[in-house]
Amino acid sequence: MTDAPDEGFGGGLTPGSAPVVVMVDLMRAYFDDDSPLNLPSRSCLDSAARVLGAAREAGVPVVHTRVEFAPDGRDGGMFVRKVPALRHLYGGGPLAALMPEVAPVDGELVVVKQYASSFFGTSLASTLTAMRADTVVITGVSTSGCVRATAVDAIQHGFVPLVVEEAVGDRTPAVHEATLFDLRSKYAEVVDERFAVRYLGGDA
Amino acid sequence: MTDAPDEGFGGGLTPGSAPVVVMVDLMRAYFDDDSPLNLPSRSCLDSAARVLGAAREAGVPVVHTRVEFAPDGRDGGMFVRKVPALRHLYGGGPLAALMPEVAPVDGELVVVKQYASSFFGTSLASTLTAMRADTVVITGVSTSGCVRATAVDAIQHGFVPLVVEEAVGDRTPAVHEATLFDLRSKYAEVVDERFAVRYLGGDA
Amino acid sequence: MTDAPDEGFGGGLTPGSAPVVVMVDLMRAYFDDDSPLNLPSRSCLDSAARVLGAAREAGVPVVHTRVEFAPDGRDGGMFVRKVPALRHLYGGGPLAALMPEVAPVDGELVVVKQYASSFFGTSLASTLTAMRADTVVITGVSTSGCVRATAVDAIQHGFVPLVVEEAVGDRTPAVHEATLFDLRSKYAEVVDERFAVRYLGGDA
Amino acid sequence: MTDAPDEGFGGGLTPGSAPVVVMVDLMRAYFDDDSPLNLPSRSCLDSAARVLGAAREAGVPVVHTRVEFAPDGRDGGMFVRKVPALRHLYGGGPLAALMPEVAPVDGELVVVKQYASSFFGTSLASTLTAMRADTVVITGVSTSGCVRATAVDAIQHGFVPLVVEEAVGDRTPAVHEATLFDLRSKYAEVVDERFAVRYLGGDA
Repeated sequence: MTDAPDEGFGGGLTPGSAPVVVMVDLMRAYFDDDSPLNLPSRSCLDSAARVLGAAREAGVPVVHTRVEFAPDGRDGGMFVRKVPALRHLYGGGPLAALMPEVAPVDGELVVVKQYASSFFGTSLASTLTAMRADTVVITGVSTSGCVRATAVDAIQHGFVPLVVEEAVGDRTPAVHEATLFDLRSKYAEVVDERFAVRYLGGDA
Repeated sequence: MTDAPDEGFGGGLTPGSAPVVVMVDLMRAYFDDDSPLNLPSRSCLDSAARVLGAAREAGVPVVHTRVEFAPDGRDGGMFVRKVPALRHLYGGGPLAALMPEVAPVDGELVVVKQYASSFFGTSLASTLTAMRADTVVITGVSTSGCVRATAVDAIQHGFVPLVVEEAVGDRTPAVHEATLFDLRSKYAEVVDERFAVRYLGGDA
Repeated sequence: MTDAPDEGFGGGLTPGSAPVVVMVDLMRAYFDDDSPLNLPSRSCLDSAARVLGAAREAGVPVVHTRVEFAPDGRDGGMFVRKVPALRHLYGGGPLAALMPEVAPVDGELVVVKQYASSFFGTSLASTLTAMRADTVVITGVSTSGCVRATAVDAIQHGFVPLVVEEAVGDRTPAVHEATLFDLRSKYAEVVDERFAVRYLGGDA
Repeated sequence: MTDAPDEGFGGGLTPGSAPVVVMVDLMRAYFDDDSPLNLPSRSCLDSAARVLGAAREAGVPVVHTRVEFAPDGRDGGMFVRKVPALRHLYGGGPLAALMPEVAPVDGELVVVKQYASSFFGTSLASTLTAMRADTVVITGVSTSGCVRATAVDAIQHGFVPLVVEEAVGDRTPAVHEATLFDLRSKYAEVVDERFAVRYLGGDA
């Protein structure tokens, strides 16, 4: 992992001139105390809200994603069998709502998804391509789950993924860090919030 | 992660009656001493070969994947910019060949891919659906890279992924273990070689 | 097109034992007199309703699709620029509602889509695979548009597409017939309503 | 179909500044006299060769597609059962070769596909996105088959499809014309060769 960038892993991707911010699954399910999917900290939500603010100020397009299944979970396929806690997102309901700190405003797209990757089973890639976006700035939860799957699919689809370190969160620091290590090595640029905010403002 | 399976993570998926074995990227690139992608151990290759043998004995279909890019890497998109070592797979060449221990035989499909997931940018999902497969038994390399991406896409596409613990390998034990933790929690059943061999033989 | 089936086009696909009925876009937009997408006849709707009834009686799973875009049409990409009439489906609204004759009941999945194919940008293929479906019985509108695109994607994804001739409709008989000719030759079995009803009842 | 473009069908898409030419399936299978897939005329091949020449002169990227299946056709799924003539493309062979008039040169990508759409089961969309292409100029065969499926998927993926009328061909004029009617109404701009050549040269 310490190979020179022209030989091994971790080559640096250059962020482009047409970013889109993707806010992954910042739903009540991950922040309500009584949810089985609850995360131990809200700091990633606060950071994501600041990234969102920077995007709005700079006029950078924003996409929110959230998970919702049919009332009987039929469109969750094998995934809802593997993660039974997802049943709390059947038929929408309060846990499937986005957090007020990052609530969408007019002109921001909300993509409803059933799987881990924001690209899987959605028209997100088509929307980004039609917008001529080149870079996907990723915030949200969880780092090892939907954030990682989204970053992997972003690079697979031909976009530069930037994962904002403070703006993504997971259940334990170890899982969070292991994911960032993999992302840095193979799939994405992991940047800090300060870099992301400056980049969105056009100063990067 | 210790929640009861009807509430949290890690619900048990039941392997089906129509498995296919997918041998992910067991190429010289990962096992030749002078390759920049070289892995520290061949034990996963030996285990994968035993799983392959069990599948052949039982008449279970086998799919091999390998990575190959156009001579100028143009079909590698952003991925080859992020992982410069992948340039050794431009235009095929010796490092892109499958290892002799697991070389395909007549009737076994070889899927050529450009990205991490064996499903991404390939017709693998269609082939599995047309075969009426229900379960994907996964071996190969690397655990945190193409194996994980393949397992995540397998469950997203509606198949039961079984990852064979001894038959997948990575650069360090920590990365390998962190991946298996995530897979167990959210995406796949992680089974040992003994279970996989019995399952393929019809005794599971 | 009159080649023997072992040599040319139009080989007969055998319907399987696990069908799903897909009701494509039977929305008010196609049947209301004052809609710019209005079709000249409702006979396909009546036929589709009879196929739906047969599926329900036999316990065959049913999936409905409908089109809906974000309020500003942003998730319609290039498609809404090509077909400006689709703007009537921005933000849902009365034209995006399914016709009462084929309204979904509990346990029937409604897939919301933005593009022509019911599979494109949706999780429909994953749902069908997870259900272990093998055959897709297609009704709806329009024959040359979303029905055809859905049938082409159905066979590409590995399913047997059965298009029910009386239960699909288009703006002119010529366009309808030209589409059925192509589907028969290359992509689907075109069956009549009587066959479809018997097949769904288990008598085919 | 004669509605004003702001209300009905056939809105004009504006070709962008970053085109790619896609040469669809110009294989011996469609032009050899003794092939069961043989087309009645080579004029589309001649036109496609002129479009190709214009692209090369202008430095516009070119992608060729061709169809090839595994030796036993296993990766052809349901499609090879529906179109038995495709068996002539099992394991490659002479009919799967591209015509010499449009043979690829260094730096031109060749995408191997198994299905009708050049995007289905391939990494073409990712390649185009990573190249920041915005427009897909389509030539090749057959108009009602792989050309149409490619055009439909091009617009679904977020690109502007331009189908070059003289450079696409089919078995009968009626089928060719019916397809162009549908493409014009819903999915693509159909342009003549003169327009395409000027556009590729930067004069459109």
